[in-house]
Amino acid sequence: DNYFKIAVLPGDGIGPEIISESIKILDVIAEVFQYKFHFDYGLIGAEAIFKTGNPLPEETLKICKESDAVLFGAIGDPVFDNNPEAKVRPEQGLLRLRKELGLFANIRPLKTYASLIDKSPLKREFIEGADIQIFRELVSGIYFGEKFTDPEGNYAYDVCKYSREDIIPIAHMAFQEAQKRKKKLTLIDKANVLDTSRLWRKTCQEIAPEYPDVQLDYMFVDNAAMQLILNPKHFDVIVTENMFGDIISDEASVIGGSIGLLPSASVGEKNALFEPIHGSYPQAKGKGIANPVASILSVAMMLDHLNLQNAADKLRQSVEHAIENKYVTIDLNTKQYYSTSEVGSFIADHI
Amino acid sequence: DNYFKIAVLPGDGIGPEIISESIKILDVIAEVFQYKFHFDYGLIGAEAIFKTGNPLPEETLKICKESDAVLFGAIGDPVFDNNPEAKVRPEQGLLRLRKELGLFANIRPLKTYASLIDKSPLKREFIEGADIQIFRELVSGIYFGEKFTDPEGNYAYDVCKYSREDIIPIAHMAFQEAQKRKKKLTLIDKANVLDTSRLWRKTCQEIAPEYPDVQLDYMFVDNAAMQLILNPKHFDVIVTENMFGDIISDEASVIGGSIGLLPSASVGEKNALFEPIHGSYPQAKGKGIANPVASILSVAMMLDHLNLQNAADKLRQSVEHAIENKYVTIDLNTKQYYSTSEVGSFIADHI
Ligand SMILES: CC(C)[C@H](C(=O)O)[C@@H](O)C(=O)O
Ligand SMILES: CC(C)[C@H](C(=O)O)[C@@H](O)C(=O)O
Repeated sequence: DNYFKIAVLPGDGIGPEIISESIKILDVIAEVFQYKFHFDYGLIGAEAIFKTGNPLPEETLKICKESDAVLFGAIGDPVFDNNPEAKVRPEQGLLRLRKELGLFANIRPLKTYASLIDKSPLKREFIEGADIQIFRELVSGIYFGEKFTDPEGNYAYDVCKYSREDIIPIAHMAFQEAQKRKKKLTLIDKANVLDTSRLWRKTCQEIAPEYPDVQLDYMFVDNAAMQLILNPKHFDVIVTENMFGDIISDEASVIGGSIGLLPSASVGEKNALFEPIHGSYPQAKGKGIANPVASILSVAMMLDHLNLQNAADKLRQSVEHAIENKYVTIDLNTKQYYSTSEVGSFIADHI
Repeated sequence: DNYFKIAVLPGDGIGPEIISESIKILDVIAEVFQYKFHFDYGLIGAEAIFKTGNPLPEETLKICKESDAVLFGAIGDPVFDNNPEAKVRPEQGLLRLRKELGLFANIRPLKTYASLIDKSPLKREFIEGADIQIFRELVSGIYFGEKFTDPEGNYAYDVCKYSREDIIPIAHMAFQEAQKRKKKLTLIDKANVLDTSRLWRKTCQEIAPEYPDVQLDYMFVDNAAMQLILNPKHFDVIVTENMFGDIISDEASVIGGSIGLLPSASVGEKNALFEPIHGSYPQAKGKGIANPVASILSVAMMLDHLNLQNAADKLRQSVEHAIENKYVTIDLNTKQYYSTSEVGSFIADHI
């Protein structure tokens, strides 16, 4: 039916500000399209550590597990970043949430906006028409392998581990997406050095015959980091492991002109979470300057996921309308700019 | 005195072609400056596997250990890249050589050439004046940690391990370089997730007071991958672990306009190796189109290392002269271009 339970986790830094705008949008969509969204708020990250000592309180996890979708703001606080000794860290909350919900694929669509293309550090001719979809594995690899620091602090290690079962589901997802697009899938790895990368290559090679119309190619991560800038139009769908995906997808965000615009979806068998690519941006906290668009476009991905296609389409149109009319925040570097909540309201009104 | 033993390892792909040009240069320098270079050639990489079964024959290692400097071409062959099952791989030769010679720091200087700046995919105003020196740790981390693939091929792991002793020498080197430059050092890590990164942060924090004039800051690798493109002028000296350094330094090469121009030095207590940043570029092999400049500028770094400062300066001037006069190979995308050996000869003649 038309009733959806949404877990809302504003988190740290600018998280609460941008999430307010997303809620504003969902309220309008509920009204216009006659849906009902029930919001359950939960603590996570530094905010949760300060209030409960736990970066992912059990209550938050419960809300998320019972939700139809999780709307996530941002996480992270410089207090922890600059203290290598901190045992409890905000990021643990997000990582544990990803793991507990089994959100194995982080999906990041990247494209350029006609009206913003000239804001990119990259020249127009290199990026115009670039359209990339990145699938980053999200619940394994070096993020979740065994970690150790010896008590004297003389050495440490982190284990990157992958099994075929970790790779197969996201590989299928990426192949299927490629079938819907330009039929080109690039696996980014470091197979000339890492055993785990060779397992990725082998597993993708095995799956490839099931998608005969998709051309699978491989690229070493160091070369990929270069090619994404030199020739972004080379890429259609990218699939990669957790750590490489973290680096490559943030890098690729420069193609679109601003990281403040980029949404992502993290999906699993049962649950799904929607969050902007940008982080908690603590320097901007409370100033009303944060760009709400990445979070609002994450709402659009959430609406896709809930099969509310009309609402998702309408929302994307409204965002494009705002951008084309330069109704944007200061980060987009236009002469005229608006506050976080002005931009949110402008988009909401257009819906 | 003026006698130097140089180990020469041309390697795979375009390696031999570019190394020929570097030798041409060294012959001229020997004549002009009255030095004597003795060249010992060794096999390495795919070439060595085909001829001896071993990517780093003992004879090659011996030549390198006894040398004053190693001049290295490139390594890698698609035959191995596309075969995840290959047990013996060209890259093992280079990795073992780095380890055996204790080449703990890979140093990559990056700057822009006035006459090439408009060839970069990045806009002039973003890169003009960028000048970055990257220190990448080269003999530890996930490259050299334990690796394992289970016999059934169901899972694999790679261990990233660091000890304080691995970090301290390269950190000092980077701090010292920063003192000679703009006094700014950025540690790139993922300290919000990895134990090894927190060890890096802690170790650098401990060393920092010895360099009170240097400002040490930290950046997460995902953010750094973005900032390198958005704001390359933010950076002065960068220090980072092996895998992040591999990715970040290839990415940063786009700032300079062409990877075909970028040299690197890998140094240890006793030995040092000089190689272009680019790889073996097998598609270009034997076509006479490879850019010899990265290797020739690696020779300049080698001359620095041997304290032959006059020769190094003269060589750099000659390279700049060639570039300013558009005496360059096809990759630099000028209307007129020359072959690998024409460019080498032009630079040699100017010396
Ligand atoms: C906050 C951090 C742990 C996280 C990650 O590295 O996965 C973030 O950078 C991201 O990409 O979502
Ligand atoms: C060839 C490969 C093993 C090597 C590396 O990853 O170190 C290369 O990419 C480099 O950067 O020198």
